[in-house]
Amino acid sequence: MPLLLDPRLLTSRDSGRPVRYWVGIDGGGTSTRAVVADARGEILGRGEAGASALGQGAEQAWRHIAAAVTAAGVPGLTLADCALGLGLSGTGVPAQLQAFVEADPGVARFTLVTDGLVALLGAHAGEPGALLISGTGSVAEALLPDGSRRMVGGWGWQIGDEGSGAWLGQQAMKQAQAAYDGRAADGALAQAVRDVAGSSREALLSYCAQAGQAGYARLAPLVFESAATDPAAEALLKAAAAALDTLATAVHPTLPLALAGSIAQRLAPRLSAAVQARCVAPKGEPVAGALWLIQQPTSRPA
Amino acid sequence: MPLLLDPRLLTSRDSGRPVRYWVGIDGGGTSTRAVVADARGEILGRGEAGASALGQGAEQAWRHIAAAVTAAGVPGLTLADCALGLGLSGTGVPAQLQAFVEADPGVARFTLVTDGLVALLGAHAGEPGALLISGTGSVAEALLPDGSRRMVGGWGWQIGDEGSGAWLGQQAMKQAQAAYDGRAADGALAQAVRDVAGSSREALLSYCAQAGQAGYARLAPLVFESAATDPAAEALLKAAAAALDTLATAVHPTLPLALAGSIAQRLAPRLSAAVQARCVAPKGEPVAGALWLIQQPTSRPA
Repeated sequence: MPLLLDPRLLTSRDSGRPVRYWVGIDGGGTSTRAVVADARGEILGRGEAGASALGQGAEQAWRHIAAAVTAAGVPGLTLADCALGLGLSGTGVPAQLQAFVEADPGVARFTLVTDGLVALLGAHAGEPGALLISGTGSVAEALLPDGSRRMVGGWGWQIGDEGSGAWLGQQAMKQAQAAYDGRAADGALAQAVRDVAGSSREALLSYCAQAGQAGYARLAPLVFESAATDPAAEALLKAAAAALDTLATAVHPTLPLALAGSIAQRLAPRLSAAVQARCVAPKGEPVAGALWLIQQPTSRPA
Repeated sequence: MPLLLDPRLLTSRDSGRPVRYWVGIDGGGTSTRAVVADARGEILGRGEAGASALGQGAEQAWRHIAAAVTAAGVPGLTLADCALGLGLSGTGVPAQLQAFVEADPGVARFTLVTDGLVALLGAHAGEPGALLISGTGSVAEALLPDGSRRMVGGWGWQIGDEGSGAWLGQQAMKQAQAAYDGRAADGALAQAVRDVAGSSREALLSYCAQAGQAGYARLAPLVFESAATDPAAEALLKAAAAALDTLATAVHPTLPLALAGSIAQRLAPRLSAAVQARCVAPKGEPVAGALWLIQQPTSRPA
């Protein structure tokens, strides 16, 4: 029995024209992936293009979506014949969402949700389930049996995203700073950070001033590499795993849980027994969730 | 016996013209304070003007310094007759320092150091000592018996400044976020943050996006006000005091310690017995340290 999604999660538009192709799109700040199927659900091709995060502009988003669909290489396909299931980052900002809808180049039909929701739909093939993501950032999301969505964490790298790559990198930098000025013992992790950022106060400050989320996330591998020889690094991995445990439990205590993101994968063996017992392999990629979304009769507006 | 400051801490310029007035200046991102003395050291007047942090531009810095000196209301005084001891924030950035020196409007003589050093000189009347500052930010500084300066913490509010007002405010916001999405029990502190920032996810995210250092520091009083009834707030005050203990001990384990900043004052009763035993009342304000600096023969270049 297909799950009936809370309609507030969806933005749909239907031209009324017939649909020949069904397309799933997963788009974010780096790239856009497309999968194209025919009316019977058979996959005809896959393509990829540049970023389609709504925060980077509606025109670019549609351009890269079209490019990803074209890159799937399906002969005779035109966007006017396509129904698109779209999972795009940035749908939570109303102005961005509206600009995107208004820039519709004339597709037959589309249903738009946020990128996190298509990741959930892909991982659990449209069934209720939870997803713990820890890559550059961290967040836990769940699709509940009543069709609603729940989100825990994801407050951003500057103050939140505990247990993420950026968070681990920030903690590594704090360790290097404390070792520099005598608030903590020196060790392999602090040395590894100095090897990347430089060893003077000015160099460490300069790294921080320019790092941003990605720059801190680049320090995260140093924590894993130092853990065997540096108790401070080992303690940070424990703290990160505990933060991910908290996210996974708060989003839902029992639903099947898929892991996504490089940091979640590396920390998986350190998660609590209760959380590990819930872990399942993802059934599909986010782009498969986007395709599932548009193939549902319930997502087709009247 | 006056302390001989490490010459690398000083930037001096001397026109060779005679000096009639000795002026101490303490300048930061909000205001500039001046104290004017005659050749015998007698205080003739005090004045105040706008910001003279070097990061806000050399021209503005000199303009507000001149305005603060004028505001001291000493009849017949001209800047060309003054020797200025300057403690200004932002001297650590070489380009800013050079721009300031080049914009010298023609004072008889000046010696420039960073604002932290004049605070130290003022607090201990030029003797060796340490200063623990926790207001919006946090840092510990010491003037050692060999004339060198030591600094611990002060890595900036985004990643450091543990135990400061901005840090307490960030922890308060994290508590409100965790209470919002079920990672922590709700309580008086989370409620107080919601009363200020709003209670939806969007409102909390929006507060964080605009807060900056000052916006977070505005939440710090909520932690003190909630501590009696909310264990989470009480735990944050304990953690802040522990961070300040670490700063005070790492900067120097035994030198007399003066406290500065509203958060340091409020956390003073929570500091460790060893740190409290070192605490002394500051002997003077930073502007008195700046005046002391320019009155020393050792700060007069040949």
